[in-house]
Amino acid sequence: MRTVKTMGLLGTGVIGGGWAARALHFGIDVIAADVKPEMESWIRGAVANAEPALARLTFAPLPAKGELSFTTDLRVMAERADFIQENIPEQLSLKQKMLAEVSKIAPADVIIASSTSGLTPTDLQRDMLIPERFCVAHPFNPVYLLPLVELVGGAKTTQATIDAAALFFTFIGMHPLHVRREVPGHLTDRLQEALWREILHIVNDGIASTGELDDAIIYGPGLRWAAMGTNMIYHLAGGEAGMRHMLAQFGPCLKWPWTKLEAPELTESLIDRMVEGTSEQAAGRSIRDIERLRDDYLVAIQQVLRQFNIGAGSTLRALEERLYQDADTGESTSSSLTAALPLRLVTTAVRPEWVDYNGHMSDFRYGQLFGQAMDALFRKIGVDADYRASGHMYYNVESRVMHFAEAKVNEPLYVTTQILAADEKKLQVFHSMHRVHDDFQIAIGEQLYLHVDSGAAKASSAKSSVIAKIETLRKAHAVLSLPEQAGRIVGARR
Amino acid sequence: MRTVKTMGLLGTGVIGGGWAARALHFGIDVIAADVKPEMESWIRGAVANAEPALARLTFAPLPAKGELSFTTDLRVMAERADFIQENIPEQLSLKQKMLAEVSKIAPADVIIASSTSGLTPTDLQRDMLIPERFCVAHPFNPVYLLPLVELVGGAKTTQATIDAAALFFTFIGMHPLHVRREVPGHLTDRLQEALWREILHIVNDGIASTGELDDAIIYGPGLRWAAMGTNMIYHLAGGEAGMRHMLAQFGPCLKWPWTKLEAPELTESLIDRMVEGTSEQAAGRSIRDIERLRDDYLVAIQQVLRQFNIGAGSTLRALEERLYQDADTGESTSSSLTAALPLRLVTTAVRPEWVDYNGHMSDFRYGQLFGQAMDALFRKIGVDADYRASGHMYYNVESRVMHFAEAKVNEPLYVTTQILAADEKKLQVFHSMHRVHDDFQIAIGEQLYLHVDSGAAKASSAKSSVIAKIETLRKAHAVLSLPEQAGRIVGARR
Repeated sequence: MRTVKTMGLLGTGVIGGGWAARALHFGIDVIAADVKPEMESWIRGAVANAEPALARLTFAPLPAKGELSFTTDLRVMAERADFIQENIPEQLSLKQKMLAEVSKIAPADVIIASSTSGLTPTDLQRDMLIPERFCVAHPFNPVYLLPLVELVGGAKTTQATIDAAALFFTFIGMHPLHVRREVPGHLTDRLQEALWREILHIVNDGIASTGELDDAIIYGPGLRWAAMGTNMIYHLAGGEAGMRHMLAQFGPCLKWPWTKLEAPELTESLIDRMVEGTSEQAAGRSIRDIERLRDDYLVAIQQVLRQFNIGAGSTLRALEERLYQDADTGESTSSSLTAALPLRLVTTAVRPEWVDYNGHMSDFRYGQLFGQAMDALFRKIGVDADYRASGHMYYNVESRVMHFAEAKVNEPLYVTTQILAADEKKLQVFHSMHRVHDDFQIAIGEQLYLHVDSGAAKASSAKSSVIAKIETLRKAHAVLSLPEQAGRIVGARR
Repeated sequence: MRTVKTMGLLGTGVIGGGWAARALHFGIDVIAADVKPEMESWIRGAVANAEPALARLTFAPLPAKGELSFTTDLRVMAERADFIQENIPEQLSLKQKMLAEVSKIAPADVIIASSTSGLTPTDLQRDMLIPERFCVAHPFNPVYLLPLVELVGGAKTTQATIDAAALFFTFIGMHPLHVRREVPGHLTDRLQEALWREILHIVNDGIASTGELDDAIIYGPGLRWAAMGTNMIYHLAGGEAGMRHMLAQFGPCLKWPWTKLEAPELTESLIDRMVEGTSEQAAGRSIRDIERLRDDYLVAIQQVLRQFNIGAGSTLRALEERLYQDADTGESTSSSLTAALPLRLVTTAVRPEWVDYNGHMSDFRYGQLFGQAMDALFRKIGVDADYRASGHMYYNVESRVMHFAEAKVNEPLYVTTQILAADEKKLQVFHSMHRVHDDFQIAIGEQLYLHVDSGAAKASSAKSSVIAKIETLRKAHAVLSLPEQAGRIVGARR
């Protein structure tokens, strides 16, 4: 099979546009063919829309982008492309006709693939010249971001075609899943379609709305499905005995009307297949190990969704608002004695996603934790959402971090925070990060903030109520000695 | 309804343990009742296992943890609890008997809820005393991390009971979903069960393995489901015309054998309900706006999974390895002229999840980008995975960041990197961050690294090949003037 420098698209639309964006991004030229000339500007728009997200997918160096060209003549495309992907409407006879036509022009070593959601390759390749080089390559929307592509061969497809297609799709960042048997809907759409038809029944029966049904997924199973499928998840639900226990416990439910889909008979042979399959997936890892991995990604994903204030992330935000409010209310009981100590605003543990290849917390995460301490300090002195909404805020002008010891994964840490200096515009703060178990100081952070009027876009005095709160803290902290690491030049000897 | 200070658990197991962990974490005392005394150590172990992940869920201040107690006498639990949650095996008659028993002891203002996956509340409350205070509250595994809880009332349940239960579950960080009509399996398990039964059919028919079926989800639809359900996703798939176009395009597929589940007739009234429902979900946002949100979280989630090297994250890692290798190979063409310039190792744009409440990139993200530049530099000088595996690496000793201007969301940025000083152990580097559109310098970073022998856990000389590469760069950069911001004390006047 030939090296792919140019991908040909037969048909544009949402899927064709997604293919174009992905291929171009990873340095492949694209020639798109569509009988409607107006689709040229459409596909260029689709590529442009995809680019901002695609550009953030990786920090790794990318080759020069591919070039996009357009033709209304499918023969021009078929002559120039090294790999042809068909994306026309889901009608068998139309696809058969167009694929046959393209196959007569495309050189013999050019793979021709179909994006069909559910038609089978044996049907599609029926009238093609050299049908051996044809396969189904079914992607998912948005094609430029989701890695899955199902590869399905028909009766005449060669293994070499599947292998070469897999290689090409891997090159453009995808995960080819070889579907070993032809079946309408392949694998993914069969699973999606079962869920979808159950949705239609529930809405049709007036039981719930589309929004309620979406919520039923995104706050629960959807979070798990981002990295583990139903089989692995149910393997975990079975406890130490895994899938076998799960089937024993929930097997009877298969007879219950929990969906309009009748289950197959849960025979010993089916049980064995389910148990063997999941045991293979577990690959020697204990239930506990897989649970830990699941918990880690569930937390990290909710943190990401929190940033976008969507789904489970909005639940987390609401919870945090409540916790902060409660903490504020509870503060009335804190004694005056503790006011003289550096504030202790952040206590946490090093998260698995924070460590680098050394197994140590990455440099910039120290800055993140010092930033968390600043956020907590700002809340404490009244620089909150209302304050910012009024057009006033503190900007970070300068930060310095010094590292004295590494922090390992799961290591509990706390940060103390001390006001070094302050006036009506400036706020200089010193943070110190410690291990919880022995109070060892592992890093310090020094930060200088400037109060800004965001409307006027220049430095301004903070509100008097904020200045008063800072002053109370500054005076309390003035009795503390200046930390020895404060006010140093980077790299100077101690 | 009373304030909940103590949650009573009727039955332990995986679900009971999850409830205990969640409630305790958010400051609620828990009393667990199980006839088997050995379940005391079991539930304490389950709570301990849950804690590491739970502790990372939020940075917000938490109340003191609740206390866990255990009894083999359900009456002791029912007398002391302010809210009772039943988690015994999924057998109707057993649940009816135990719920009736508990209802005779628990005070009238104590809500009693069942964790049942699919039994209906009218059946469950049949023999209870004061059945008005009963409802189904169905959680999802792991209960301590997933926010979803389905609330379902039976024929005798009052709205006040549902409201009070919703309040309590919100307090412990959950998202209560009120299921308005009783139906076996409620909502979520009906959707999950349809997918699950289709899996069983596919495995039973010998079409695919459990692992292949899990892959069919996690590399594709599963990523989407983390924050959008099937209805919203299909609304997007319809393009500008949304769900109505999607149903017109894929409606015929409902008659095709894409699952063993027969679809309902796609009547005008069903189409209207689907369109109205998704239009309500869109809440005035354009398809383009929702697409952007979807793309943003799909990228951010893949980045998270990359950290754990799981699912789509492992695909991304493999892609990046290839891209780095290609970039290395391609480097042989770079001219000697460019060697004298500061390196330009990172070009990116400010991601939506990096900005703070000001709409500006958060402080610590500057550190992250400087860290990315260092990673790229390390690769360049041969400090790669093999090198680190040999027990040698550079530790960050000190960092300083200065901010001159803010970076807004999506702003394209680049970082230049210059060697300031180096010897066989030390490496001092200066980074400068710029806006792409006008080359304006928005921040600088200065970093000091020490080479370490991780076996001996002390400073050591880098390998000669690495020292040679650093020296080449250092000499080339020596012709550049020392940046004016290098070597300053935090807060000193310019």
